[in-house]
This record gives sequence, structure tokens and C-alpha cells, in this order.
Amino acid sequence: MMVVAADLLGKTAFWGIGFCLIVVSAAAGASNGANERLNIWPMPKSVSHGHHSLYLSDGFELKTDGSTYLDGSGILKDAFSRMVEVIRGTHAVDGNVVAGFNQSHVLKGVHVVVLSANEELQHGIDESYHLTVPDIGSSLYAYLRAQTVYGALHGLQTFSQMCQFNFTSRAFEVHQVPWTVLDQPRFAYRGLLIDTARHYLPLPVIKKVIDSMTYSKLNVLHWHIVDTQSFPLEIPSYPKLWDGAYSSSERYTVGDATEIVRYAQRRGINVLAELDVPGHAQSWGVGYPKLWPSKDCQQPLDVSSDFTFKVINGILSDFGKIFKYKFVHLGGDEVNTTCWTSTPRIQKWLKTRRFDGQQAYQYFVLRAQKIALSHGYEIINWEETFNNFGSKLSRKTVVHNWLGGGVAQQVVAAGLRCIVSNQDKWYLDHLDATWDGFYSNEPLANITQPKQQALVLGGEVCMWGENIDASDIEQTIWPRAAAAAERLWTSPENLANDLSKVGGRLAHFRCLLNQRGVAAAPVSGYGRDAPDEPGSCHLQ
Amino acid sequence: MMVVAADLLGKTAFWGIGFCLIVVSAAAGASNGANERLNIWPMPKSVSHGHHSLYLSDGFELKTDGSTYLDGSGILKDAFSRMVEVIRGTHAVDGNVVAGFNQSHVLKGVHVVVLSANEELQHGIDESYHLTVPDIGSSLYAYLRAQTVYGALHGLQTFSQMCQFNFTSRAFEVHQVPWTVLDQPRFAYRGLLIDTARHYLPLPVIKKVIDSMTYSKLNVLHWHIVDTQSFPLEIPSYPKLWDGAYSSSERYTVGDATEIVRYAQRRGINVLAELDVPGHAQSWGVGYPKLWPSKDCQQPLDVSSDFTFKVINGILSDFGKIFKYKFVHLGGDEVNTTCWTSTPRIQKWLKTRRFDGQQAYQYFVLRAQKIALSHGYEIINWEETFNNFGSKLSRKTVVHNWLGGGVAQQVVAAGLRCIVSNQDKWYLDHLDATWDGFYSNEPLANITQPKQQALVLGGEVCMWGENIDASDIEQTIWPRAAAAAERLWTSPENLANDLSKVGGRLAHFRCLLNQRGVAAAPVSGYGRDAPDEPGSCHLQ
Repeated sequence: MMVVAADLLGKTAFWGIGFCLIVVSAAAGASNGANERLNIWPMPKSVSHGHHSLYLSDGFELKTDGSTYLDGSGILKDAFSRMVEVIRGTHAVDGNVVAGFNQSHVLKGVHVVVLSANEELQHGIDESYHLTVPDIGSSLYAYLRAQTVYGALHGLQTFSQMCQFNFTSRAFEVHQVPWTVLDQPRFAYRGLLIDTARHYLPLPVIKKVIDSMTYSKLNVLHWHIVDTQSFPLEIPSYPKLWDGAYSSSERYTVGDATEIVRYAQRRGINVLAELDVPGHAQSWGVGYPKLWPSKDCQQPLDVSSDFTFKVINGILSDFGKIFKYKFVHLGGDEVNTTCWTSTPRIQKWLKTRRFDGQQAYQYFVLRAQKIALSHGYEIINWEETFNNFGSKLSRKTVVHNWLGGGVAQQVVAAGLRCIVSNQDKWYLDHLDATWDGFYSNEPLANITQPKQQALVLGGEVCMWGENIDASDIEQTIWPRAAAAAERLWTSPENLANDLSKVGGRLAHFRCLLNQRGVAAAPVSGYGRDAPDEPGSCHLQ
Repeated sequence: MMVVAADLLGKTAFWGIGFCLIVVSAAAGASNGANERLNIWPMPKSVSHGHHSLYLSDGFELKTDGSTYLDGSGILKDAFSRMVEVIRGTHAVDGNVVAGFNQSHVLKGVHVVVLSANEELQHGIDESYHLTVPDIGSSLYAYLRAQTVYGALHGLQTFSQMCQFNFTSRAFEVHQVPWTVLDQPRFAYRGLLIDTARHYLPLPVIKKVIDSMTYSKLNVLHWHIVDTQSFPLEIPSYPKLWDGAYSSSERYTVGDATEIVRYAQRRGINVLAELDVPGHAQSWGVGYPKLWPSKDCQQPLDVSSDFTFKVINGILSDFGKIFKYKFVHLGGDEVNTTCWTSTPRIQKWLKTRRFDGQQAYQYFVLRAQKIALSHGYEIINWEETFNNFGSKLSRKTVVHNWLGGGVAQQVVAAGLRCIVSNQDKWYLDHLDATWDGFYSNEPLANITQPKQQALVLGGEVCMWGENIDASDIEQTIWPRAAAAAERLWTSPENLANDLSKVGGRLAHFRCLLNQRGVAAAPVSGYGRDAPDEPGSCHLQ
């Protein structure tokens, strides 16, 4: 799959009079002078480039001859249009590139060949791509080859970062041609959590977050839909659940959720829905008070009642129609069982079963797991479930670390899969966590056996919503999430050990996000700090 | 112009079986229960509404029969499309409104009649509109009548705020029909300043600011382009001026500036370009060091050199090709003349002219004014020019207040025009200035004579850029700028005196901005403060 099309390589060689390839390896942060710096984020697996420039043709086009993938739903076509728009949106140009320029310096488009007709987006699909941009010549096209359309989408993102407006020629150009890029992600799971329970996030805001994720090749939107404070999602099986929303307008219909999944999927991003049980679920009882242990003690969900599990079953049944990702997240974190042990009715039930609070917690989680399995889902649970009764969890469980470092090591040693989100490094709501901590956080720390390494699916940065709404979500996510995205995408040998060598490239990427209308905060500050004085984007 | 089309009124009366008009006057903050609250921002001059709802047809359309305005450049058509997109962007719906609903409850579109064919956007054009939405009936259209297309654009904004997604019908609806709105702005100048010298703002960011301005009917983007720190704009007459940009990429071409003007104009917004002289101009000398008094003392611009005024002439000549608004802003604030009085060469020149520093400052400002007048511009100057030598200013000067309150009173007493931006109330970079101060700031305070009142063109909120870049501009502007926008748009009799009655409506408007993807901050906090705890948008 990674073989360069012979004809293209031949042409490159023929055209390559006077070109000088700089092969960049382990050069994530290396700078060969300002003009030579490789400003691609996240750094590809292997990349080489030259010193010439090509103009992007006014009629810059997508060509798909030879593709097995027919793009019936327009995923590739739309991605190409978005890419062109994002490049061209930064400056206004007169449409004179075709007319006014030396035709041997004009790149006419991208020729994309996708080998698989299947556009199902599942965990672990092939996201690799091979991108070449020719040197000066005639009738030039960049060439992008990928197994799946989602790999091709990543290739287009990389291509977009090679392009820049030239203030002298007044044209958009691809710099540093010829290019050869061979790329593939290190981890299959590269996530970002958003939280619509602490604050409702309107649809256009979620869509913008999804768009911004594509720029650094993140591929899972973990949607923490519901929590103690609110239940914004429509559940047809239990239509009073969203009575727990903050207001009548701060709700998502099934249509809205379906649209979010569709929108994300067309951008190569899976949506992981979370139903956090049995804690973090107080809002469920607004519509169905029977789910509360009592009126005065409202969570965790009543473990003693079959109705609780009927509702979970109904929700997961409805989820199955909306969320097609193979995983569902069942939460399981921060369960305080006091309401169970202090409510007489439940006390009694515990006694019959000979459960203490902890055993009831285990019972709840395992029963919820079984329901999820019955709907065809594999399960992700927060790490407390593993820490408390890891050996009892379904073998189809992925343990989601958050409390601290070192957990992944134990999880994979126990033969379970793991996602890393240790809060000290990868919680975006920790405003004192800076980009270098996000960058340095290694999911495979102290995991040396390849078999165990393979059990680490990847990692996720978490944008918890207590102090996050539509007004500040973007600049709290970016650019720090991008630092983690490189950790998750880029091969270890291309990751920078010396962080001073990567800061400039990250600052460049942050400015690129700004140019694309994403409100990424200065790299140098804490969290989402405002710039502290006048100055260039590239130095802040 | 404000006469209701007879046939339409007739129909409304005929259809109006069982409808009950609530005439809202002086009701800016009045709430007749949650369902009845009039959630339009800024409050129109006169508005009445009923209690019914209509579904927006799937094929919701723009009809322009009888319009004198032919919309050759698509200003109206595009505005209509944007409006529909903004309404529909908040939730996903199945396309079943035409098919599934009682046809007498379906609104098919808006019939817009624009009386003037002229689409020139100049200061003081007629921005009024008359909007009616019928009650239940058949073949229904809203009717929007305006003298100019820009009045019609305001009418569409108002219409968009009557619409809402209904979670029961799963359709977008116009609530509280029938509506009759007669509306016009109180002030002709309703501005927002942005500052691209302290931080470069990419084109997509400026465009988004422009879009967000339209939602509260602001109509002037004051572009503070250049300052001490950077000179980002291309000036063909003096091509080295933008050597003073922060970096090669943080620049605007003439094409970019033209595009900003075009983009704004199509949304009913004029762009006021500022060339702040003679202070705040150090960056000019990066390309032309001769403009500095000396290498060690770099501003104000050298008053003694004809080259300085040649450059100003060149810039204003180039401005004339880009910025078509009748005003240009010549700054004139915060001039410290020490570099003049301490540089031997300029000292000598001052002596010859018998000028002290203050007189030289006056000389500079008046000479710059003459150049601007020669290019056909009327002039806006910051208030220091008036405070120091008001009687000498061209009678075509508009004095731009900023230092504090009470200035407008003096300016109009002197027979000059004025724009109000007193920093204690209307500087958005003052993060301790809260929305109630923005709302309460009255441009006509202590100005009682109608003739003097007429000299107050309006006001402007200022988003100075020392700590503002693409990452925080939106939430620092909104929602506070909207509070000022109502002060500038709405008739005094409809402004709320009791601020507790307007906060809920402003919170609603802030949530509306969020739903449209604008990162408006919580109403309740300081400046752009993050929400301080989980909760509903409407209560924060």
C-alpha cells in the first residue's frame, strides 16, 4: 500500500533538475533555518522535501482516477473543498494564477487514490497515507494514496499545511517541493472529551470543535453527554429523561445527536457516547424520581431496582441507533455509595444480597456491562472499576485511566486494554497544565513488552465542562490538545525529546489554527491565558 | 415609507380570528410571563405580537415582487440565506414540514420590498424597516418593507430572533404571531473598534466579528489598523511601510483590506479606517526610518519633514481606493512631543516656526486633516485634538470622545459632531466594565437641545488589542458590546431604566449568540470571565 506509484516517481526524478532533497528524520523539532523548518503538525512518520515552490492553480482540483473508492456520499469531495477553503480563506487573491504564471510552476490539483471502497469508520481502520508533491514541471498534480478515505483525509490535512500565501507572488503556494510523505498514526485512539452536562454546547459549537480536531488528526470525540447536573439528550425509550436538561432549549434531539455523529464521521472522527453510571447520574431522576435512592439522597442510581437497569437498557438500545462506534463508555467513576447504605429500602436489599457498598458498586457496573454487551458494544469504563474489581470486568473492557500516571502499566499487565488520560497531564480543565506536559505525557511509559504495548489503544485529552461553555471551549482546548495529538500520532523516533525544539513549530501550528478561525490560545501561557502584551502570534 | 401595505393589513385583520395583539411599548425589559417575553435584541421602536405559532416551510423562500431594488450583487439574497442557515443551524430536522403539517400553520417565506435601487452604504442612510408576520391562514408570507436593502437586512435579523426550534413539533417556528414591527435606529453611527496593530487578526477572525456585529445591528467597524507596535497593511505608494509588520505572514494586502470592506458592506457595515498620527506611529519607521525623529527617539512622526506628510498623503490616497466610507479616522491621541523638542534637527525647525511642542502637534493634526479633506474624506479625530485646539479643527471634524464622560456636551456646544466612547463605560478591554455600565451609558447625557443632539452621531465600543488576539476577541466583545448596541439602536422610551428587567433578555441574546457559534461570555461575570460553575446559559 505504501509503494509509490512508479510513474509518479519517474516523473519526479525527470523533473528534478537541480532539486535537492532534504530527508528529515527524527526532525520533529529540528530547524534548518527559518525557511527550512518543517512546519507540519503532527509530525509525519517519514518526510522529505525540497526547496522549490509551486502555485496552486485557481481551478485547483480533486482527481480520483484509479480510485476503488467511489465517494458516493461525497466524503472526499467535501473534505477537499474544505481544505481549499481553509487555505484560501486566509487572504484575498485575484484569480490570476492560471493566466499570469509560468505553467511549469503551477500545481493543478491533488490526485487521490483510495484503495478500499469501504467507508465504514471503525476503531483500528487503516489511517495511513502516502503523499507526494512533485517538483517543477508540467501538468502537475500532487499524488495522495491511501487504503481508506479517512487516511486520504489525513493526507489532505498534511497537504494543507504545506501551503501558504506568498505576499510577493500574491498566490497560494506549496512550499518546499518536492515532498514525499509516508505517514500513519502511532495509536488508533486519539481522543478529546467534551462535556455537555455541566454546560450545554450548541450544535454549531460542537461542529466547530470537530472541525478543529481534524487539523491535528484526532479521531475520537468522547461525548460525556449526561452528568449530575443535566440530562440534555432525548431518549425515546424514556422520554422524560431529558426533563433533566437545564432548560427546554438546552437539549439535543435524536436528530441532533445523529447529525453530530454524521458530521464527525465524514471527517474521520468517531463519537464515543458516555453514559456515566451509577454515579454522576442525579439528573436522570428529574424525569424519573424512582431512579433516585430517595428524594433527599439522589445518587448513585438506585442499585436495588430493576427499573434502573431497564432504563439503562432503554438508553443503550436507543444509543445503538445513533452511536455506531464499537465502544460505549459506561463511566463508573467517583461512586459514593452512601445513599445506598443509608436508604432503608436499599439497605434491606443489600442485606438480602449480602453486599456492602463496594460489592453493590461492582454488581451495578458488571450488570450495566452485560447490558451494553447485549447491544453489541464493547465497553470503556473509568479506571476506578479496574482499581476496585479489575479481574471481574468483562474482557471486552477498555480501562480509561484518569487518576494519575502508572495505571496503564497495571491494566495491560492484567491483559485489559487501556486509554490514557491521566489528569495531571491531559485534563484540559487543569489550567495550570501547560503544553509541554501535554506533549511529554507518554502512554507507553514503563510498558516495554510489545504485546502489552498493543493493549494501549491510545489516549485522550479531557475538556471537562464545569467552567467551560461556548465562550471559552476553543481556547481551553487549543493549542494544548494539539501537543497531545502529536504524542498520539507521531512515531516515537520523530517526537522531540528536547522541547525547546518543538515550541516554535507548535506556535506556528497555533497561528495556523487562528488563521483558520479557531480561537487557539497563546502557547506560552497557562491554560487559555490571554496574550500578556502586544506581539507576534509566533512568539506568544 | 412606514405605511403598512394596505392589502397586508387587510389580510391580517381578516385572518385574525381569535388573535390577541399585545402592544408592547416601553417594554424593553417587561416580561409578561416566560412565554410572553419579548426576546428581541436590540428592542425595536415599536412592536406588537400575538400568541400563535407558524412553522417555517422547508422551502422557506425569499420573494421580492414589487421591489425597486434588483439585488444585482446578491446582498439581499445572501443575507436571506445566512439568516435561514443561522436559524436552522441550531438543530437537525427532518425535512417534513411541508408534508406533515397543517398548511394554514406554515409560513412559506419572507416577501421583501426594498424601495430604493441604490445600494451605496453611506453614513446616515435610511436603515428603517417595517416587518409584519401574519397570523394563521393560508399561503402565508412575512412582509418586510424597507427604504434601503440595509434596512431590509436589519429586518431579517429581527425576524431571525422571532424563530425558534420547537422540540415538540420538531420544526423551526415563528412564535408569537402575528407580529408588527416598525423599527429604525436612534443613532446613525453604531461602532465597534478592532485593533490589528497590537495583535494581528487573521481575515476569518475579522469576518466572524463582522458577522457577529450584524446580530445586534452595529453598523461601523472602526479598524485601528496601525500603531506603535506594528504596521500590518500594504500601502502601495510606500511599499516598505508594512516592513513594520510583526512577521512576513502577519500582514494584510490591499486585496485583503478590500475584501474586508466588501464583506462588511454586504452586511450593512461600513469600515472606518484609522491612521493614527502623529503619535502611535513608531512602526512606520521600520521601513522608512526618516519618519522617526531619530533612531533613539522614534515617535511621534517627524513633524519637521515634508516626507512625513508625503507619506500620509500617499497612504490616504491608497486608502481612498479601498475605504469608501465618508470618514477617515486620523487619531491624534496621546501625543508626547518630547522626541520633537529633544531632537536637535526638529528643535531647530520648531524654533524657526516659533512652535512649542503643543503648537507643533496642532500644526501636524491640521496639516493631516487638510490632506484627508483633499482626498474627499471627512475626518474623525480622538478628543485630545478638540481638547487642545478645538476651534482650529476643520468644521468637517467629528470628535471621538474616549477619555471620560461629559466631552460630547462640550463638543456639540462648539458646533462639532461627536462620537462617544468614554473608556470608563465603553472600552471592552476594561475587563471590570460590566454589561450594565455598557447599557446605561447615554450618549446624549446632559445634551438637551435637539440641534446639539443631532451632532452626536452615535457611539462606539472599543476592543483595544494589547491583550486580545484571535483566541479571546469574541468573548471579550460579546455580550457587552450588545448592551451598548441596544443603547445606540433603541428609542429612549424603549430602553430599560430598571436594569433588572433587561438582564434576562440580554442573557437570552447571549445564548442566541452561542447558538450561532459566537463565543459570547456569560452576562453575569466581569469581562470575558468563564462561567464559574455548572449551569444553564440563561442564568449565567
